[in-house]
Amino acid sequence: MDALLEDLTALLGPGAVLADPSEREKYETGWRYGKGRARVVARPSTTAEVSAFMAYCHGKGLRVIVQGANTGLVGASVPDEGGAMAVLSLERLNRRMEIDPTDRTALVDGGVLLSALNGALAEHGLHFPVDLGADPQIGGMIATNTGGTRLLRYGDVRRNLLGLEVVLADGTVVDTLSALRKNNTGLDWKQLFTGTSGLYGVVTGAVLQVAPLPRQRAVALVALSGGGAVLDLLRSLEGGLFEVFTAYEVISGEALAAVFRHQETLRNPFDEVPPYTALVELASSLPESSLDLASLLEEALGAHMEAHGEGVLDARFGKPAEFWAIRHHVSESLRGEGRVLAFDIAVPRSGLPAFTEAVKAWLGREHPFMRVCDFGHWGDGGTHLNLVWREADSPLPAAELVPRVQRKVYDLAVLEHRGSYSAEHGVGPHNQHYHDLYTPPAVKAAGAALRAHFDPEGLLGITRLW
Amino acid sequence: MDALLEDLTALLGPGAVLADPSEREKYETGWRYGKGRARVVARPSTTAEVSAFMAYCHGKGLRVIVQGANTGLVGASVPDEGGAMAVLSLERLNRRMEIDPTDRTALVDGGVLLSALNGALAEHGLHFPVDLGADPQIGGMIATNTGGTRLLRYGDVRRNLLGLEVVLADGTVVDTLSALRKNNTGLDWKQLFTGTSGLYGVVTGAVLQVAPLPRQRAVALVALSGGGAVLDLLRSLEGGLFEVFTAYEVISGEALAAVFRHQETLRNPFDEVPPYTALVELASSLPESSLDLASLLEEALGAHMEAHGEGVLDARFGKPAEFWAIRHHVSESLRGEGRVLAFDIAVPRSGLPAFTEAVKAWLGREHPFMRVCDFGHWGDGGTHLNLVWREADSPLPAAELVPRVQRKVYDLAVLEHRGSYSAEHGVGPHNQHYHDLYTPPAVKAAGAALRAHFDPEGLLGITRLW
Repeated sequence: MDALLEDLTALLGPGAVLADPSEREKYETGWRYGKGRARVVARPSTTAEVSAFMAYCHGKGLRVIVQGANTGLVGASVPDEGGAMAVLSLERLNRRMEIDPTDRTALVDGGVLLSALNGALAEHGLHFPVDLGADPQIGGMIATNTGGTRLLRYGDVRRNLLGLEVVLADGTVVDTLSALRKNNTGLDWKQLFTGTSGLYGVVTGAVLQVAPLPRQRAVALVALSGGGAVLDLLRSLEGGLFEVFTAYEVISGEALAAVFRHQETLRNPFDEVPPYTALVELASSLPESSLDLASLLEEALGAHMEAHGEGVLDARFGKPAEFWAIRHHVSESLRGEGRVLAFDIAVPRSGLPAFTEAVKAWLGREHPFMRVCDFGHWGDGGTHLNLVWREADSPLPAAELVPRVQRKVYDLAVLEHRGSYSAEHGVGPHNQHYHDLYTPPAVKAAGAALRAHFDPEGLLGITRLW
Repeated sequence: MDALLEDLTALLGPGAVLADPSEREKYETGWRYGKGRARVVARPSTTAEVSAFMAYCHGKGLRVIVQGANTGLVGASVPDEGGAMAVLSLERLNRRMEIDPTDRTALVDGGVLLSALNGALAEHGLHFPVDLGADPQIGGMIATNTGGTRLLRYGDVRRNLLGLEVVLADGTVVDTLSALRKNNTGLDWKQLFTGTSGLYGVVTGAVLQVAPLPRQRAVALVALSGGGAVLDLLRSLEGGLFEVFTAYEVISGEALAAVFRHQETLRNPFDEVPPYTALVELASSLPESSLDLASLLEEALGAHMEAHGEGVLDARFGKPAEFWAIRHHVSESLRGEGRVLAFDIAVPRSGLPAFTEAVKAWLGREHPFMRVCDFGHWGDGGTHLNLVWREADSPLPAAELVPRVQRKVYDLAVLEHRGSYSAEHGVGPHNQHYHDLYTPPAVKAAGAALRAHFDPEGLLGITRLW
């Protein structure tokens, strides 16, 4: 055994240090992107152990990548290919989980899984409402600032984060784990560690604001004639149902048709596939005896159709599980259609139709074999603008085609529509090039100043925010 | 006319530069604290003019204090007594006000008044829901991160800020004025300028998320037996009425009695003055035909009284204007009782009764002539713990008594109850000493690093966040 492994084993205990290549593999491979090689995987189980580990690495000049559940989509939680980085896995840092129903908060270790937290919260009639497809750790959710399908109502992680515990690159523990909703005492320290991929410190603990579990939900699928009609309906629903309006997920006809081609158990509830379909969800903590959400939703849609009759083609009610299943099978179904180039774009939501049309127009001229199969969180301005094509139809190899199309689509989003090349997923190696291209110089300079302050040796992480 | 005034007049136009002492006075005096002397008052009316002004001051080494509507409560918007600082007033920077009902956003200049914005929004059935007693400018609200009485439902300014335009100390304009709800591209730049008193840059523009105006409100005053009963009711209401629960303002018996002693037009709706009174407000964008808030509130209180009968002494419904008037006259009424030492404290809300009791116990031993007249935003953990005494009863002069009591009350809040010495108002000269005492060294160090980065000459502001 080499000296590093001996030292770390002495520091963290034998079960905490993985050096065998077969044991390391899952920590070296990202969920969607990223594949590297680790010098060692360390799995401390307390904040004090994380601190000791960081101080040790700092002393030795050992580079560290922090890893939660490794469910991120931009490759920001796996080591590079050099084989010299240590993976700091927080999977055993999951002892603290203190729920306070009066504060409506949960104090958790950074390595606690979202599912574990929600399981414990459910016993108190509570949940952490940042709703995702994956099952990440809370520390990773903070470092990524995850959003999800119900951001419209509950906000992102940043919005629900009250207190933080971080370990800095030199091992210093900074404990601001307080359950304060109001604390205007200058710089809001926790913001520096939210959405910054663990580059300025390791999130080892957090106090989260949580919410009561809804007592009822109502869901509708609404067939719409186009992007303008999608926005008209959004505006009507927000104006009339604001506080119970929890999701507005939109699927284009191209994407919806793919779902029904590839998912045998799912059926089109409409007679045809409409240009756009909106999944509308309402939820409330009020009982049905006070507020009948299902009737409310039918009435609101009826009133909207009277005012904007031409835009709404059809509507179906009820069946939340079935309607959400359609939404959740879009990505998988598109992969059955051919090559897919996925995007995670946001623009101001009023600009979604014009942005989508601009992409279609450009593709029609330049790469007419690519189909735009867009879907996403229109309530938040988010669009997973997936492009689908058959390899055989492309005169260019994918390795040439993909970067060319990415660049143009991102240019349209960022430069022409004041949008974002990464709405939800973060930067990471996958988006590094676009961060470098589009980030204002002043923002990069602040990122560099913070890096120089927190980690002058540059030991933490593999993303560059400067 | 001296060279400075000549230069600034050439840069900004004659109406923009005030040098006469009588004209300067209102810019030199804080709302509650702070009185200084300005070298000059400059009032640019565009971002380009702010930039030119800052570049000029940077070149000359002239110190600048940024001032909005000057309604802050910690003296952070007035110059020091040296007479060498320029006041940068944004009162004429109020041209842009672009409301987009589909985005549900407003793009505004930093100098736009909250009342002006809400007036324009009302025409679209919208409002900016950060609800305050004063009428500040939007830029000042961002630099202070104001909270107010409906934070429980709508959050603070930070929560509703989507995009920002700032002018840095050297005159550089950084425009991130985008209406994005999702934008996970690393460091969230706008957080550096939110709640930091204009120390890192001048907020010249913002994109705010706004909300539909409620269609109905229901209000109750509930008489409660003590702090535990206040928290029990809070928990019941949040669990059952989450999304329509917009305010929970609590007034102690000492404070309420003062209101009825000093406000002739206001009457105690109860037979006696209860130990605590909670003002409960519900609001909804749903029409009464779908949701009857008044009945809902009565039912919810009835159900709570069945479960926790001993804690609820009485309840009165309706009369929103009258009930809010009682709440809004607390501060003024206490000033009629004698000397007042006001606080702006937050603790985790479950700790409010124990914290309040700890203050009472200490005062009972050390300064028994001081009465605790607490009231505040219990839903957010906020308490304006006002102490009232008759000067004649104190063996110590106020100049000795006040700092001694402040220090102990803040120690109890911050050190014993993980609370904040400034829940809403910010740091400023008024709280500088307590910032220096209680801020963790790592947070100060980050504040210093950002100052060194943004403003190495230290020209902006008079608060120190390091």
